[in-house]
Amino acid sequence: MVYITRRETFAASHRLFNPKFSDEQNERIFGKCSNPNWHGHNYVLEIVVAGRPNPETGFVLNIAELKEIIEQHVLTKVDHKNLNVETDFIKGIIPSTENVAIAIWKVLVDKIPSGKLYSVKLSETENNFFEYRGE
Amino acid sequence: MVYITRRETFAASHRLFNPKFSDEQNERIFGKCSNPNWHGHNYVLEIVVAGRPNPETGFVLNIAELKEIIEQHVLTKVDHKNLNVETDFIKGIIPSTENVAIAIWKVLVDKIPSGKLYSVKLSETENNFFEYRGE
Amino acid sequence: MVYITRRETFAASHRLFNPKFSDEQNERIFGKCSNPNWHGHNYVLEIVVAGRPNPETGFVLNIAELKEIIEQHVLTKVDHKNLNVETDFIKGIIPSTENVAIAIWKVLVDKIPSGKLYSVKLSETENNFFEYRGE
Amino acid sequence: MVYITRRETFAASHRLFNPKFSDEQNERIFGKCSNPNWHGHNYVLEIVVAGRPNPETGFVLNIAELKEIIEQHVLTKVDHKNLNVETDFIKGIIPSTENVAIAIWKVLVDKIPSGKLYSVKLSETENNFFEYRGE
Amino acid sequence: MVYITRRETFAASHRLFNPKFSDEQNERIFGKCSNPNWHGHNYVLEIVVAGRPNPETGFVLNIAELKEIIEQHVLTKVDHKNLNVETDFIKGIIPSTENVAIAIWKVLVDKIPSGKLYSVKLSETENNFFEYRGE
Amino acid sequence: MVYITRRETFAASHRLFNPKFSDEQNERIFGKCSNPNWHGHNYVLEIVVAGRPNPETGFVLNIAELKEIIEQHVLTKVDHKNLNVETDFIKGIIPSTENVAIAIWKVLVDKIPSGKLYSVKLSETENNFFEYRGE
Repeated sequence: MVYITRRETFAASHRLFNPKFSDEQNERIFGKCSNPNWHGHNYVLEIVVAGRPNPETGFVLNIAELKEIIEQHVLTKVDHKNLNVETDFIKGIIPSTENVAIAIWKVLVDKIPSGKLYSVKLSETENNFFEYRGE
Repeated sequence: MVYITRRETFAASHRLFNPKFSDEQNERIFGKCSNPNWHGHNYVLEIVVAGRPNPETGFVLNIAELKEIIEQHVLTKVDHKNLNVETDFIKGIIPSTENVAIAIWKVLVDKIPSGKLYSVKLSETENNFFEYRGE
Repeated sequence: MVYITRRETFAASHRLFNPKFSDEQNERIFGKCSNPNWHGHNYVLEIVVAGRPNPETGFVLNIAELKEIIEQHVLTKVDHKNLNVETDFIKGIIPSTENVAIAIWKVLVDKIPSGKLYSVKLSETENNFFEYRGE
Repeated sequence: MVYITRRETFAASHRLFNPKFSDEQNERIFGKCSNPNWHGHNYVLEIVVAGRPNPETGFVLNIAELKEIIEQHVLTKVDHKNLNVETDFIKGIIPSTENVAIAIWKVLVDKIPSGKLYSVKLSETENNFFEYRGE
Repeated sequence: MVYITRRETFAASHRLFNPKFSDEQNERIFGKCSNPNWHGHNYVLEIVVAGRPNPETGFVLNIAELKEIIEQHVLTKVDHKNLNVETDFIKGIIPSTENVAIAIWKVLVDKIPSGKLYSVKLSETENNFFEYRGE
Repeated sequence: MVYITRRETFAASHRLFNPKFSDEQNERIFGKCSNPNWHGHNYVLEIVVAGRPNPETGFVLNIAELKEIIEQHVLTKVDHKNLNVETDFIKGIIPSTENVAIAIWKVLVDKIPSGKLYSVKLSETENNFFEYRGE
């Protein structure tokens, strides 16, 4: 079993905010992350696939193919977008990095042609990282 | 002369857009950066001050003091903000990274208590860097 | 289950040295790391907490709260300190990075208000990393 | 159990190519990586050993000793080499990063004097990482 | 005047070798870098352009356009290539990083549509950097 | 003219402290950096040499030779040392990063066999950088 990881980046705006909370509650819980005028990040996304290398190619999965799958199903929907209002697979959930990582897992889990999705890692800043493994 | 650099980061949303242009022109010139729903970045800011070390302290400028000056005059106005609509020293200009670097220079140039502001470096993504030296 | 990681840094001095060994033995085993005049590092600390996101907030644990817990219980005791002589939870043990990581685990394991401490990662230089998961 | 990691780098040339395939098949499957004139990378290698710290030293394994083992058994055979034609433990296999990681595992697995080899991580570019844990 | 930098990477093989030298001389001067079977690197290229932002766009030069110019004139000729035998603008010169940086300068200096080429920075490994400013 | 840079790292302990000041003054000016029990850093040192490539070798200066010069004259005196009490070329000056950079310049300026020393860059943490160019 080899774990292969493709790293991609995207730039997006978002806002942490729960419509069930009052403005004061949102402000208290989410702080500056609930700014109604939005803020944004350069997200770093790492997609990990686990599988056995094909003896003919030495590849678990051609990483160029993995790159295209991530591009088509994730990056086109999040890069230079507003995650709260524009990304179909995030709309309606609070776009905490935890929830965005889980949402990306759900999008990709049945799109991996060889090997299995093992982990979605997402960092929001250089000091905060999040990982979801489907557990 | 020693050049001392303080590195800080901030997360902001913005949009590239010139109100004198039509939507089509904005889209053609600024591409995905003109998304009306905003996008955002983790900006990396480096402030460079040049001066001679004080023989009593070995410091051009106490870097803790430089950090506070950047915090007070820049970071409180850009971190987790929308640069187009919330940052007083950017409002009304197109927030290209070039223009934001120049705007930060203007804010800081007369706030450096010892030594002289030498350079403002600002990166928008890990592949795009911008520098302004007041020239 | 989402794994959230907070990255912090601290600068400390230390010395590897076992009082049961002779000076020659300390020198042979620990080499330049046993310098009696101390040396130091910029340590990079990553604290990983595992848990399920709260549906109201999208957070496993507010990472600002995690940051404060690390600050209060760890950073105030190690940053700009001598690990051998000043840090209460390290004094009396050999401050190898392995042992420091285990000591930080013990300090934090019962301080996490939501989710569970999963891993303490500590790097001493850009080429040496250490991880303890409580096993 | 502590996981200790030593990071090393090496620069090598290689070519992805299966002699059972026609030139067209090699080109279609491996793309620019099958260039008959070779290309190369700065590989980043991380060797992870798991074990319990020795109470006398605080070390799972002296990382200086681990460095020497990697140097002697791996780096001297891959650094500034052509992996396809010069590296005895890679010759005859397709040098995909997956396969190189597995080959390095096989070389090192019985050379670790204390603790056990836990993982071989190898990155080929800043966006592609591979890990093998002997499973 | 703003200095804008675009960072790109490429992977290539090469060999340091002067045909006027004997094999022994090449070996003595270039060491392992003269391996006749080639070795390779992930080069990091930074292209710096200096100019004044256009008041209509805020851009010195649209960095997407700069990216395309680098792609077309440099990357297609060096990425996954053998610099000694395949790159037209390097063939016949010793491909030291110094010489490759100068060669890239000569290729790009008259291709910048707005602003002026200010610097070509090229790193060969994470510890060796080279810069040429046309002086 | 090409600028070549060699990056090295070292780990050292130090203390900021002026013997002419009272303890209170040292504490007020240098804060936690004046801890009498020392603290330490992983310093990153970049030595920049400017010169013209030798047409026979393509090198301004063989970077392996530059590495050895830095090793012999600087690293052996600072790595795993206490800068205040053990480093001959620093003893007696306040080891601010500004002053250490200037001291390293003075050590190296007449040791460069080809080209000229252009800059000494020294970083103390990932957010604080210092550069001296002999001006």
